[in-house]
Amino acid sequence: MKVLVTGIDGYSGWPLALHLLSRGHEVVGIDNFVTRKRVAEVGSWSATPIPSFPNRQKAVREILGKELTFYKGDLTNYQFVHEVLEREKPDSVVHLAEQRSAPYSMIDVHHAVATQVQNLTGTLHLIYAIRDTCPTAHLVKMGTMGEYGTPNTDIPEGFFETEFHGRKDYLPFPRQAGSWYHWSKVFDSGDVMFASKIFGLAATDVMQGVIYGIRTPEITDHRLLTRFDFDETWGTALNRFIAQSVLGLPITAYGKGEQKRGFIALEDSMQSLRLAVEHPAKPGEYRVFNQFDAAYSVNQLAEITARVAHEFGLKPVIEHPPDPRVEAEQHYYNPIHEHLLALGYKRARDLEEVVREIFHDLLHFRRRLEAKRFVVMPTVQWRSVDSEPALHARLPPTAHPGASSPTTQGSEPTTEHPPA
Amino acid sequence: MKVLVTGIDGYSGWPLALHLLSRGHEVVGIDNFVTRKRVAEVGSWSATPIPSFPNRQKAVREILGKELTFYKGDLTNYQFVHEVLEREKPDSVVHLAEQRSAPYSMIDVHHAVATQVQNLTGTLHLIYAIRDTCPTAHLVKMGTMGEYGTPNTDIPEGFFETEFHGRKDYLPFPRQAGSWYHWSKVFDSGDVMFASKIFGLAATDVMQGVIYGIRTPEITDHRLLTRFDFDETWGTALNRFIAQSVLGLPITAYGKGEQKRGFIALEDSMQSLRLAVEHPAKPGEYRVFNQFDAAYSVNQLAEITARVAHEFGLKPVIEHPPDPRVEAEQHYYNPIHEHLLALGYKRARDLEEVVREIFHDLLHFRRRLEAKRFVVMPTVQWRSVDSEPALHARLPPTAHPGASSPTTQGSEPTTEHPPA
Repeated sequence: MKVLVTGIDGYSGWPLALHLLSRGHEVVGIDNFVTRKRVAEVGSWSATPIPSFPNRQKAVREILGKELTFYKGDLTNYQFVHEVLEREKPDSVVHLAEQRSAPYSMIDVHHAVATQVQNLTGTLHLIYAIRDTCPTAHLVKMGTMGEYGTPNTDIPEGFFETEFHGRKDYLPFPRQAGSWYHWSKVFDSGDVMFASKIFGLAATDVMQGVIYGIRTPEITDHRLLTRFDFDETWGTALNRFIAQSVLGLPITAYGKGEQKRGFIALEDSMQSLRLAVEHPAKPGEYRVFNQFDAAYSVNQLAEITARVAHEFGLKPVIEHPPDPRVEAEQHYYNPIHEHLLALGYKRARDLEEVVREIFHDLLHFRRRLEAKRFVVMPTVQWRSVDSEPALHARLPPTAHPGASSPTTQGSEPTTEHPPA
Repeated sequence: MKVLVTGIDGYSGWPLALHLLSRGHEVVGIDNFVTRKRVAEVGSWSATPIPSFPNRQKAVREILGKELTFYKGDLTNYQFVHEVLEREKPDSVVHLAEQRSAPYSMIDVHHAVATQVQNLTGTLHLIYAIRDTCPTAHLVKMGTMGEYGTPNTDIPEGFFETEFHGRKDYLPFPRQAGSWYHWSKVFDSGDVMFASKIFGLAATDVMQGVIYGIRTPEITDHRLLTRFDFDETWGTALNRFIAQSVLGLPITAYGKGEQKRGFIALEDSMQSLRLAVEHPAKPGEYRVFNQFDAAYSVNQLAEITARVAHEFGLKPVIEHPPDPRVEAEQHYYNPIHEHLLALGYKRARDLEEVVREIFHDLLHFRRRLEAKRFVVMPTVQWRSVDSEPALHARLPPTAHPGASSPTTQGSEPTTEHPPA
């Protein structure tokens, strides 16, 4: 199959490309490199050094013996999207090219608007470009388990039979997102569902759990590594915990630490996306996959991290600073995830094993963490503080060169090399 | 109370301003006049002549003896929104300034994106500007009954108790909108609900039914009239039916005509918004009002129109062209509407009486309808026609001067005078 991957330069886009290529699929990629720029804006970089995209293509050619077609551009430019789809006419479009950080979306009004506007616009552009150039293409859209929030019931895969005042219907499950970013994914889901209805779009809406890990079987060389973000804005809680351990800092588990979420290993997430691509939705079908493997609480993540850290001679303590997010710190959590199992999904990696592998990689790139050690503590407060002005992300407190000019500090956007 | 009305130059914004002023409230208005421009873009205008805004202010001064403060500007400009709220610090913000046409949003990808982006951005800007300048102000947000679609159950006011797998929760009722425009209102609802949670915003989300009528008790002079759109893009089905009758055209009731929606008279909608303003939500409260008075099917509207038309010596026939929308033509429909009744809402006008009043006004302005008779037939197809290119709004078929230049045809944007 020919698969277009939007956001191919990103954390999951890149290993997806490698995985699909290794399975004999043809891969075409789109990216605007905005993740590299935005991570640099908060003064951070990927713990793993990320080659420029031409060097990534070269590595794929030399190591995997495969060609990777690439278009640099932005999904908010409809002309660009239309031209790429018209030229490539892919069988599937895996849409990963969205602003993906909840804390980033909460910085202030402009980040809130940019997140929702850019994410919505890209998805609408893809919907129309598919309709107009390759109407039978299957859209696999990256959403998030966070769309559902934490209701006091089980969470179905997108739809549920419900009864109200004695009458029944099969309806979309209510969404209760917890950040402007998560809401942007809810909005995407509405638009994709509607496009299936009016345009006959074949669509899989992936409610993605939190992904962990740096490696997949295809990453056989450092030149093929995917990025690993560990700062408070772009890294996940688990990434931060491991980075904190490596840096000799306390592990900061927000609040009571009983907040639960669904998690999945990078390799298993790639397996899941491939299964969606290889078993496409039918025209006019809108299906939802809850794409996670197991649920963990923040405390469980912290404890597993601390346990594995000890194996490496590290002795992090676990602290519980106040939760900057507005979320239930104790809640019921039981999402259903059966659709992928029905397509043959089998867990390949478990959490503790992957945490061990991440420690191994981060210790190797320890100097890159040390160069950015100020970025792993929380800076964005989500709630309103009385009538305080906007929630500005505080700049890093250290005398980091270029700290007053966010776009030039840290690594260069397109070549993230280790420090000299 | 001091009330800021965004979209004060629009169909409901204008009579709301008059109603609030007559009840002793202070009114501040914002508008960018985009409705005037966009109606001109489709070659139409308001059946009622609409004075320029300075002349509207003058009429308010001379006829009602009241002052109306006005700021021309666009809600997508955050600086502007922040400055107006900082200066005025209103007690309530009634947010009516959104792209309000479903067919307009369905024209093509650019109209879809513009509708969703502009509506979302304006709402987010208001949310943040209220938080930062007047955090106790009550936001009354204009949504639509169309957010719910037509589920096979009763429709509650925003939330319902539901059970899934033996556990219960009180959750937002699922939304199933029927156009990009209607989805934009769903998205707004998500953002406003979330703002109540994180910023303590006091919010009333109005699920507005279709409004009918041109007059309220405060409109005692032609200079105070609100607009009446009758074209296929900006007019409601009922408006179009009455205009068709006046023009001697068949009444076009799409499809089987069994589609039901909730309706409310303009005067009663203004009463409802005033009740919301005078009984504000509490800080952090997000409440939803289903703001309609009674449900009617398209056929019922067509029949009432034809019956009243006969009283005026008009003899329209009712036709059933294929439905250009993607909607269930026969469905259950029973939305609940109790919250406004609890605040003292009492129906002042019934449908047939208002239809009679509209006929009276349209016959008076008959020449303005005749000048634009080509705009009352459907031009936008909502569904995809195989792999056809975008759904372009077809230009009017007649040799209308300036038809090739949509922004200059029809009336001037800021002064909608009757033809000489």
